[in-house]
Amino acid sequence: MKAEIIAIGTELLLGNIVNTNAAHLAEGLASVGIDTYRQTVVGDNPERLKEALEAAYEVADMVITSGGLGATGDDLSKETAAAYFGKKLVENETAKAHIREFMENLGRKLTENQWKQAMLPEGSIALQNSNGTAPGFILEADGKTLIMLPGPPSEIVPMFDKQVIPYLREKSGEILVSRTIHLAGIGEAAVESELHEEMLTMSNPTLAPYAKEGIIDLRITAKAQDTEQAYRMIAPVEQMIREKFGVCVLGADEDTMESVIVSLLKERGWKIATAESLTGGWVAGKIVSFPGASEVFEGGFVTYSNEAKMNLLGVKKETIDTYGVVSEETAGEMAKGAAEKLGCEVAVATTGIAGPGGSTEKTPVGTVCFGVYINGKIQTSTVRYTRNRNSNRDFSVIGALNRVRLEILNDNI
Amino acid sequence: MKAEIIAIGTELLLGNIVNTNAAHLAEGLASVGIDTYRQTVVGDNPERLKEALEAAYEVADMVITSGGLGATGDDLSKETAAAYFGKKLVENETAKAHIREFMENLGRKLTENQWKQAMLPEGSIALQNSNGTAPGFILEADGKTLIMLPGPPSEIVPMFDKQVIPYLREKSGEILVSRTIHLAGIGEAAVESELHEEMLTMSNPTLAPYAKEGIIDLRITAKAQDTEQAYRMIAPVEQMIREKFGVCVLGADEDTMESVIVSLLKERGWKIATAESLTGGWVAGKIVSFPGASEVFEGGFVTYSNEAKMNLLGVKKETIDTYGVVSEETAGEMAKGAAEKLGCEVAVATTGIAGPGGSTEKTPVGTVCFGVYINGKIQTSTVRYTRNRNSNRDFSVIGALNRVRLEILNDNI
Repeated sequence: MKAEIIAIGTELLLGNIVNTNAAHLAEGLASVGIDTYRQTVVGDNPERLKEALEAAYEVADMVITSGGLGATGDDLSKETAAAYFGKKLVENETAKAHIREFMENLGRKLTENQWKQAMLPEGSIALQNSNGTAPGFILEADGKTLIMLPGPPSEIVPMFDKQVIPYLREKSGEILVSRTIHLAGIGEAAVESELHEEMLTMSNPTLAPYAKEGIIDLRITAKAQDTEQAYRMIAPVEQMIREKFGVCVLGADEDTMESVIVSLLKERGWKIATAESLTGGWVAGKIVSFPGASEVFEGGFVTYSNEAKMNLLGVKKETIDTYGVVSEETAGEMAKGAAEKLGCEVAVATTGIAGPGGSTEKTPVGTVCFGVYINGKIQTSTVRYTRNRNSNRDFSVIGALNRVRLEILNDNI
Repeated sequence: MKAEIIAIGTELLLGNIVNTNAAHLAEGLASVGIDTYRQTVVGDNPERLKEALEAAYEVADMVITSGGLGATGDDLSKETAAAYFGKKLVENETAKAHIREFMENLGRKLTENQWKQAMLPEGSIALQNSNGTAPGFILEADGKTLIMLPGPPSEIVPMFDKQVIPYLREKSGEILVSRTIHLAGIGEAAVESELHEEMLTMSNPTLAPYAKEGIIDLRITAKAQDTEQAYRMIAPVEQMIREKFGVCVLGADEDTMESVIVSLLKERGWKIATAESLTGGWVAGKIVSFPGASEVFEGGFVTYSNEAKMNLLGVKKETIDTYGVVSEETAGEMAKGAAEKLGCEVAVATTGIAGPGGSTEKTPVGTVCFGVYINGKIQTSTVRYTRNRNSNRDFSVIGALNRVRLEILNDNI
């Protein structure tokens, strides 16, 4: 089966927003074995959408659109698509019920415009929108499939993942199963050189790397008759990766740095505190991103000034004067101070120069010192990142949390 | 003039990377008054590219491509494009000199493949690549313009901004100038209803709204003979917006919430502290995102547990027991505690339920209480967000900082 993705939105054509939806849809289609032939972006303009639909169905059996389903009058996409298939828009009872439910949950009244969103082409399957009022829908007609989805990522992503993907999986008959192994504390180049041969020669399962903000994902994808067979094909590849990369393996699939840290701490009944300078709260913020964080995360300190480091965390003035505020000694005292103030078994500290200013001969921009405290023991380390201010801070967050992970694992032995 | 953007790359079709180039090119084209008619993504496939070029020139005078110019054998884009115009690929001396210069700067030897990159369609203007070896080029033929650029953002962005934009500006003879006014503390719907008439009827300058994470941008764009005239046309529209939205106007162009807060505090010689629960460090992290933050930001507390709120910030047990941990009373005591502990004139506190768990009858998920302390005075407020966990936290960050901004401005009167 061949699909085309059409994004509808003048703001995309003007470059005001980036078309992240297309990548998400394309990735999902690939995961169920559907080839994407082309991606197109058109403005909020019925004539252009009509042309795009015509061109798409010349080469594809399936078109997935994003955007153009809002409640305002300019959103004529549904009308255009219905007309293309010679269908009328009719009130869809399922869609109506979903919209009512969504608004009732918010405790709000429906407006006339919102009711209009329940109008879908005749014969459509309504898709529920868990984060908005505009329903999506699937229409099958004349041997073609049209799937129209809302534009905001918070609406389209869950709708696509939870409703469209299962529908497509059933339709395709063949099953594609992926498992992603996450690596931390190792560079992209090192991973690729280590797996160069495998990535080139493997065909089923396939193996592909993706790097994002200090984490390398290795995706293993198997094509099979059923899920069980696919997992049997994936298992030896996962085994090989785990042996090759050992402690750099952070986890798999839905595991994240923060979920792994939270569960390592939970297993041990430990709590964690943070002490941050250049990351300015982002290490704590990352831990809190995981819904279970409150069980292990007590709190933290953002000590941006030297005074805050001394007054809140008890970093010694001599330490800062002798070794500098960006030093492993300072990082170690910060971690110790945070653990003691909050009564935690574990603490992590960051101090560094995010840039662009602040460089000295001894400590150039991008230098970051980490301190990890576990039950009285302190480990420190230094790295140098070579990115811009906020990217250096992002990498420092992962660097800090990965050091916590490794020290907890070490501590266990 | 009408343009179409074609991105070439199988990794885009597979959803492995997001097409950020298209947004960058589209925004640049809009800035010089060139309309983008459509954006397309095709794989690394000569036949598909040929079809895409044919379809593009049916409606556009100019095509800009990204990607497909690498040194490897699969990159047949240049050949395909040259063939479309009935041109041969010939060695371009300028391109050759650029490649030699680039490699010499790196202290590396040229490979045979890299030399091949100097082959461009006859009559092309070579574009220098400051971050790679693949040159871009501009070809004008048969009344059409083709601009082919490399794919990696680090290569295409400077090439486009520094070489293509000046070329286009000269070609168009007309100048387009934009100024963006940022609003905070007001919803998208309210802004649109307030400016509905203007947005529909204004043609030069135009006025368009964009919403992102709690900030509404209003972009005013004027087409004129020169920059000065454009700014004269923009000024009354900006004036109108400032009068209509008053204190909701956060700033313009490169102003951000964090830069505005930092400069308000700097003007007054004040320092700020943070006390965060559900935002977990993101309010502090946002302030630190601005490079000048160290002049006004002392530090902050992430007090995720009740104990941390009491022990670090001096929140009273009775306050939590009587009013709840998510209450304006707790938020107020948190802000006061942070200001006092860090000796700051200003402090901001957040406490709330990010979700998905934690809902109670009295305080449903998404409820967030804010506290702002300024020189002994405390202001508190409550809102309810209806998004997912981390989006509720993002909105809370902007909500918290905007309250600081408003209270500082109020305090001035």
